[in-house]
Amino acid sequence: MENCIFCSIISEKIPAQIVYTDEQVVAFKDIHPAAPVHILVIPRRHIESVNVVQAQDETLLGHMVNVAGIIARQQGLEHKGYRLVINTGPDSGQTVFHIHLHILGGRKMPFRFDEE
Amino acid sequence: MENCIFCSIISEKIPAQIVYTDEQVVAFKDIHPAAPVHILVIPRRHIESVNVVQAQDETLLGHMVNVAGIIARQQGLEHKGYRLVINTGPDSGQTVFHIHLHILGGRKMPFRFDEE
Repeated sequence: MENCIFCSIISEKIPAQIVYTDEQVVAFKDIHPAAPVHILVIPRRHIESVNVVQAQDETLLGHMVNVAGIIARQQGLEHKGYRLVINTGPDSGQTVFHIHLHILGGRKMPFRFDEE
Repeated sequence: MENCIFCSIISEKIPAQIVYTDEQVVAFKDIHPAAPVHILVIPRRHIESVNVVQAQDETLLGHMVNVAGIIARQQGLEHKGYRLVINTGPDSGQTVFHIHLHILGGRKMPFRFDEE
């Protein structure tokens, strides 16, 4: 999709620190990391957000979660742990409207999701 | 699985405020809500965490995400937004080792995931 920064990363018009790629998804380091490990997993197919997800997208979404686990293990996060996050809409702080799954790890994350 | 609180909710040995159920998943209100809307989506099949997820689980995981979107819309979160979270291991604060997807909504969530 034109004017989508993540589609431009997929088509290699914009550079990114790619850590994983396959036929369905691409994963790269977040340019403004919120944790020592902060990687985004995105589908190659442009899907705006969870709001527009349909049953036919389930295999792709599940692949994103499985790949997130693979990457987390590659990053050595298996034992200490990690958080996977998908934001949707303004209350969540979604800024790019191409669905993306955050992998956050390498530090202790507060139980209440947003308070120390 | 014995001694798993979420398996006990699925088998109705322990009560919960169920908001959605189908052949693959059950969703219920978190008993210690971290947001005005805080619902957990769990698979009926016991999977410990993302650490043990395999390719064969992708359809189920994707269904969890799709169902989370359906529930978010049912809860009226479509426009204001919501956050989906899966925690794995100690750094993330995972407390129940039956994979679960948090739906958080009804308030503004900080962009950095854990700081105001």
